[in-house]
Amino acid sequence: MQEEIRNSDYKYRVETCFFPQQYPLYAEDMGIVVVIDILRATSAMVAAFESGVDRIIPVSTIEEAREYIGKPGYIAAAERNGEVVEGFAYGNSPLAYVDQDLRGKTIVMTTTNGTKAINLAKDAPRLVIGSFLNLSALSEWLVSQNENVLLLCSGWKDKFNLEDSVFAGALVERLLDSGKFGVEEDSSIAAKFMYMSARDNFMSILKAAPRRRRIEQLKLLPDAKYCLTPDQCTVIPILRNGELVRMVPQPA
Amino acid sequence: MQEEIRNSDYKYRVETCFFPQQYPLYAEDMGIVVVIDILRATSAMVAAFESGVDRIIPVSTIEEAREYIGKPGYIAAAERNGEVVEGFAYGNSPLAYVDQDLRGKTIVMTTTNGTKAINLAKDAPRLVIGSFLNLSALSEWLVSQNENVLLLCSGWKDKFNLEDSVFAGALVERLLDSGKFGVEEDSSIAAKFMYMSARDNFMSILKAAPRRRRIEQLKLLPDAKYCLTPDQCTVIPILRNGELVRMVPQPA
Repeated sequence: MQEEIRNSDYKYRVETCFFPQQYPLYAEDMGIVVVIDILRATSAMVAAFESGVDRIIPVSTIEEAREYIGKPGYIAAAERNGEVVEGFAYGNSPLAYVDQDLRGKTIVMTTTNGTKAINLAKDAPRLVIGSFLNLSALSEWLVSQNENVLLLCSGWKDKFNLEDSVFAGALVERLLDSGKFGVEEDSSIAAKFMYMSARDNFMSILKAAPRRRRIEQLKLLPDAKYCLTPDQCTVIPILRNGELVRMVPQPA
Repeated sequence: MQEEIRNSDYKYRVETCFFPQQYPLYAEDMGIVVVIDILRATSAMVAAFESGVDRIIPVSTIEEAREYIGKPGYIAAAERNGEVVEGFAYGNSPLAYVDQDLRGKTIVMTTTNGTKAINLAKDAPRLVIGSFLNLSALSEWLVSQNENVLLLCSGWKDKFNLEDSVFAGALVERLLDSGKFGVEEDSSIAAKFMYMSARDNFMSILKAAPRRRRIEQLKLLPDAKYCLTPDQCTVIPILRNGELVRMVPQPA
């Protein structure tokens, strides 16, 4: 009974949606949507802003991105099935943006899963980009806001994705620990359970990953190690008028 | 590298599908589908066969079930949203079937999620019914077969369901431990992670469950305790010509 009372004490909800297609089932009353595509779109976006990029325009098709190849001030990036699309110099590797000076540049990016999730949720009141890279900065900002938060995993070609869900679990735990948030959905508890099993060694996610994906991931092991190392960045990308920009945090 | 070799050693796959709607994405090459609706449809089915029922006919609509009310030899059972449907004496409570002599009887049953999942997968080569109640009997039988196994969770009104997924994780672990099975899908690893977090106390699933469902579950606490206690039954229901019957295990 006491637990029942304690449980209704929270002011805001943090919930998890494992699949972009299920977004409409979870979107109601959500003031902030966090889009998650750990390997590698949202990690790459955070890394690019950390390197000073002005804005990132997420587009759905390769054709839209191709128009920007060679255009001064623009970087055109396109990934499908884990590979850089032919004709493009950039895909979704975050390491391509690390230790570069990208100030004044605009990235136009299309990826298999991540930009699709952004597009689906683009009408959310606020949409921000999450990754292990900005885990602490993002969770502190979320706790400082007074909104329900939806964690939107990008999945892998309409199927369940492990690393996105483990990261969602990391955010669920931090927001629950703040005492300001509670959960109503089983998916949020499940994400937290997954995070609890993986937390002591994020690289174990890759070891646990099925063979097909493991081979892909070994190929991009430096990328994966980078994407699974928390708190290398403090920037939070936010969607404004269809473009991702660097959030300038407001004083609380 | 060595791990890579070891990983390709298995002969069969065990995979997990969290949502009935995603069944077509996972169904290919699956010789056996295990339908899971822990609270409470598949637990009730196992309990009924343990009490001797001849067959269970899963139907999709309340109207179909209603035709059997009062018909000699039949038990008509209908549940929607956790409640017994008006006019029916039975819903999906397994305790209604425990310690009864149901020999010679046929149950006609419709439930919110479980019978829907059975209907979706009814064309699988073999479809069996799983629950904590028959966990050991079922996992031993699955290991004795030479087939890929798909664990089909019923979900909760198209959303993710925790107890179904934790049970899937229990089966994944047992089948992996046999050395005969491997996984390719992230969802199977995720289910195992969830099971690892919940295994020492299945009732913790209810404690972790969100408020709305917790209240529902407190109302049916005796049912939930029964459904979450492994290995009270040894029967395995199997679908034959649209009807669930008791499997008579063949010698290996």
